[in-house]
Amino acid sequence: MVNTTLAMDAASLERFLDAEFLQVAEDFTLDEVTVDRLVVRLRVSDKHLRPGGTVSGPSMFALADVSVYLAILSRIGPVALAVTTNCSIDFMRKPAAGADILCHVRLLKLGRVLAVGECLLFSEGNTAPVARASLTYSIPARDAAVASNTAKI
Amino acid sequence: MVNTTLAMDAASLERFLDAEFLQVAEDFTLDEVTVDRLVVRLRVSDKHLRPGGTVSGPSMFALADVSVYLAILSRIGPVALAVTTNCSIDFMRKPAAGADILCHVRLLKLGRVLAVGECLLFSEGNTAPVARASLTYSIPARDAAVASNTAKI
Amino acid sequence: MVNTTLAMDAASLERFLDAEFLQVAEDFTLDEVTVDRLVVRLRVSDKHLRPGGTVSGPSMFALADVSVYLAILSRIGPVALAVTTNCSIDFMRKPAAGADILCHVRLLKLGRVLAVGECLLFSEGNTAPVARASLTYSIPARDAAVASNTAKI
Amino acid sequence: MVNTTLAMDAASLERFLDAEFLQVAEDFTLDEVTVDRLVVRLRVSDKHLRPGGTVSGPSMFALADVSVYLAILSRIGPVALAVTTNCSIDFMRKPAAGADILCHVRLLKLGRVLAVGECLLFSEGNTAPVARASLTYSIPARDAAVASNTAKI
Repeated sequence: MVNTTLAMDAASLERFLDAEFLQVAEDFTLDEVTVDRLVVRLRVSDKHLRPGGTVSGPSMFALADVSVYLAILSRIGPVALAVTTNCSIDFMRKPAAGADILCHVRLLKLGRVLAVGECLLFSEGNTAPVARASLTYSIPARDAAVASNTAKI
Repeated sequence: MVNTTLAMDAASLERFLDAEFLQVAEDFTLDEVTVDRLVVRLRVSDKHLRPGGTVSGPSMFALADVSVYLAILSRIGPVALAVTTNCSIDFMRKPAAGADILCHVRLLKLGRVLAVGECLLFSEGNTAPVARASLTYSIPARDAAVASNTAKI
Repeated sequence: MVNTTLAMDAASLERFLDAEFLQVAEDFTLDEVTVDRLVVRLRVSDKHLRPGGTVSGPSMFALADVSVYLAILSRIGPVALAVTTNCSIDFMRKPAAGADILCHVRLLKLGRVLAVGECLLFSEGNTAPVARASLTYSIPARDAAVASNTAKI
Repeated sequence: MVNTTLAMDAASLERFLDAEFLQVAEDFTLDEVTVDRLVVRLRVSDKHLRPGGTVSGPSMFALADVSVYLAILSRIGPVALAVTTNCSIDFMRKPAAGADILCHVRLLKLGRVLAVGECLLFSEGNTAPVARASLTYSIPARDAAVASNTAKI
């Protein structure tokens, strides 16, 4: 059931974001896409900041959320209907001002109905993580969804 | 250490948001502020929506996050430096299109260094919650912070 | 899909525990079973204690876990195969020595494949919760499971 | 504040468990202790099993909990008073019958008052994790506690 090859590469994933999530697509870039790990970049701009210049909690949540979603898509193809059911996130350090946030994400489980991913978030250039997150996604019935969406990409 | 009276009412809390979090202040309204419970409204607009018209996960996270923050401030006064350390959130139902989200929040613990709040989020007009969340905040040394900030409000 | 009546009452649930979870059944008692809420008691004994006489974290986790499980069974009948997929738990206060722990649990969602319950845990006689927990259960295909198990109870 | 050397090795940690947590000490063995990672073994016996022979959720929670605790002690020395404030745990696969559970744990943060650790749990001999967990511990004032306890070990 779990493919150990990539169903979508970085370029395909970015096209998918542009097509389906235009509103936020410009915020995120895929720095690395392999079977073992994705690195997703939050291109930090004013809208992501709290007073004092640090990246806001909701912006880091959004990054973790999209990163696990993209990790799932990279393995099973463009299934627009996967939805987040749970997230646990720990904010551990203040992000550096003026730095992008990089999210290192890997899938721990990719089951028939549930997928679990875990994320470490870093201010670019730092090795101590600013946050960690784990997310569960519910995945719709696979065969039909993949079939009907693959043609689009 | 825990005050069982309100340190800030709805009007004070909204002035605080306007002063300290101008960027997001217009998104949130306080519908109810009591010692036992706050109700915080996310005034849903296009920027909060996912394709299909439902409110996005990050928007609901942001609502839960600000709601617990405001609940803490309502009890201890304007401490701008309290920071979220953990959030667990469950997304349980699809929000109704075209409806604001109401967050019912109460504090379960208000300690010297940690506070824990829990939230139920509803699409306005529905009784089945769309999400639940629990958050922990770390609170800076109290006396100094309160003293230096109270004058501002 | 969701029944708003009880499928099992306190006596049926206790018989189910005795039959299926003999090893832990003596630890738990059902103090209240209604559609809106269950109250499950951890009958605290030496094996639940940490040095110093307070109830251990794993014992409180076990109480929250079984409580949500029983809440699900109370609504859908004896489905022995429901499994916990996620738990978030906050330990907020030190339990009182020598007191049972009461878990107040309610279901926030009872879907076709996932159920979410939330718990507040109290040392008996105290009104400030010692812990809160939220749990997600994955529920196996319903009709077959209920049919094959109902006869047993 | 964070030591990047070990304050306690495997033998010291096991002596600490024997001295302070006699009731559960026999359940746990330290397979590996380095600055970067600990591997803690749950020596599975009948008391850890659910009907059907798989390791119970509370037993896996207990393993994750003690593992993060030991990871903290390995860095700051024997501080018996550190307490768990939060745990998020995902149960992802059914543990293998008849196999010990190995918990791979590392500290993501070791601050003055809070520490965060993350765990992956495996049935021995399998590479797909059965569970993941992240835990936050609150650490008492350090200097006094370390001073008064170090002599004991």
